[in-house]
Amino acid sequence: MPAIFYAVGVGPGDPELITLKALRILRECDVIGVPADSPSASHAYRILLEAAPELASKPLLLLPTPMTRDSAVLEQSYTDNAARVVSTLTQDSSVAAITIGDPSVYAAIHTLLVKIRALGYTTQMIPGIPSFCAAACTLQESLGTRNEAIHILPGSYPVEESLGLSGTKVILKSAESYPRIRRLLDENNLQSRLVIRCGCPEEKIYTDIKDFPDRTEYLSLIIAR
Amino acid sequence: MPAIFYAVGVGPGDPELITLKALRILRECDVIGVPADSPSASHAYRILLEAAPELASKPLLLLPTPMTRDSAVLEQSYTDNAARVVSTLTQDSSVAAITIGDPSVYAAIHTLLVKIRALGYTTQMIPGIPSFCAAACTLQESLGTRNEAIHILPGSYPVEESLGLSGTKVILKSAESYPRIRRLLDENNLQSRLVIRCGCPEEKIYTDIKDFPDRTEYLSLIIAR
Repeated sequence: MPAIFYAVGVGPGDPELITLKALRILRECDVIGVPADSPSASHAYRILLEAAPELASKPLLLLPTPMTRDSAVLEQSYTDNAARVVSTLTQDSSVAAITIGDPSVYAAIHTLLVKIRALGYTTQMIPGIPSFCAAACTLQESLGTRNEAIHILPGSYPVEESLGLSGTKVILKSAESYPRIRRLLDENNLQSRLVIRCGCPEEKIYTDIKDFPDRTEYLSLIIAR
Repeated sequence: MPAIFYAVGVGPGDPELITLKALRILRECDVIGVPADSPSASHAYRILLEAAPELASKPLLLLPTPMTRDSAVLEQSYTDNAARVVSTLTQDSSVAAITIGDPSVYAAIHTLLVKIRALGYTTQMIPGIPSFCAAACTLQESLGTRNEAIHILPGSYPVEESLGLSGTKVILKSAESYPRIRRLLDENNLQSRLVIRCGCPEEKIYTDIKDFPDRTEYLSLIIAR
């Protein structure tokens, strides 16, 4: 396989939600890039091994991104990861780096891909099911019909401005700002659902804001109307 | 397989973008529901047969939705389709109806599923890659990073209100309103991309609004910032 860097989405949690293309690329590549400082710490790698246990023997390249908002630290980690990937690509080996969900939706792997492309290497992005589609399907709800808008908002977004928008509001990765967002949703009388770790064995679903827990975690999302 | 109605997303066009789960359900089901008045008229069925040619021999149930905004005509077609599905389910046969993209994103199949569920039958939704994730991946662009919002807007939405929103605007199914939307994007100096039939052999990509064609078609989307 030529020395290409692939950013591959493995979907939100259910190993069966990986695509044929993602699985083919991960089977054909020389090295799997794992976005963590150890394989066991990677949710994406766990999903992949459940979908394709035979890939456990494939060489790994660890590509950790620290959980920080310090932009200098983040920037340094991307530079270090790009160097690691390039060092593999220059040995004529392809690297397929995995990410949960889809690589175009709030994925650190995209920043890494841009750096690698800027260094002159060939890159490709392979889509994955985003968490909000999987959650809506689990709830058997439509995110939008006819002329309704769908607004995807990260938890760090100033949601006050957005809760008044017409259509469906999906709030992702809301762990830190969750208590404030929950209060705002309640005050605005929005019909809200909370889905935690969609498609994983530990999945939790709350369809009424009155039952929402006091805290949530990183891999959770809210669908509000 | 028990008499369940499945609404299955087959992704936007590239047959490799179907998920393992969608393919398993479509292989295991008794009847495949095709959203058209003939198999050859269905883009979703074409995608499926490219992914799994052996499914060509499986029984089909045609579930056409007329291309109209006449709500009485549409409502009658959903009622007729629900009756067709229920007639199959009562013979203890499962029906897996296919749709392009994801069944929670502007999909007629969701309206049908709601009707079938209301009649007391078991239903499930199986996610598919939405067109906007596939298009962003083809362009190797991110739809949103950090605290940026992503707004998904159908072409029939009054986009004037939304072009001023911060973040990424994705405009779907813009065929009819496209000339007006193109003019608005140009007047607002938004960086815009047009992707037609993403992942299909006839895919076309325009990365500069100056090169956009005068007309587009139903299966096209615009990503604007």
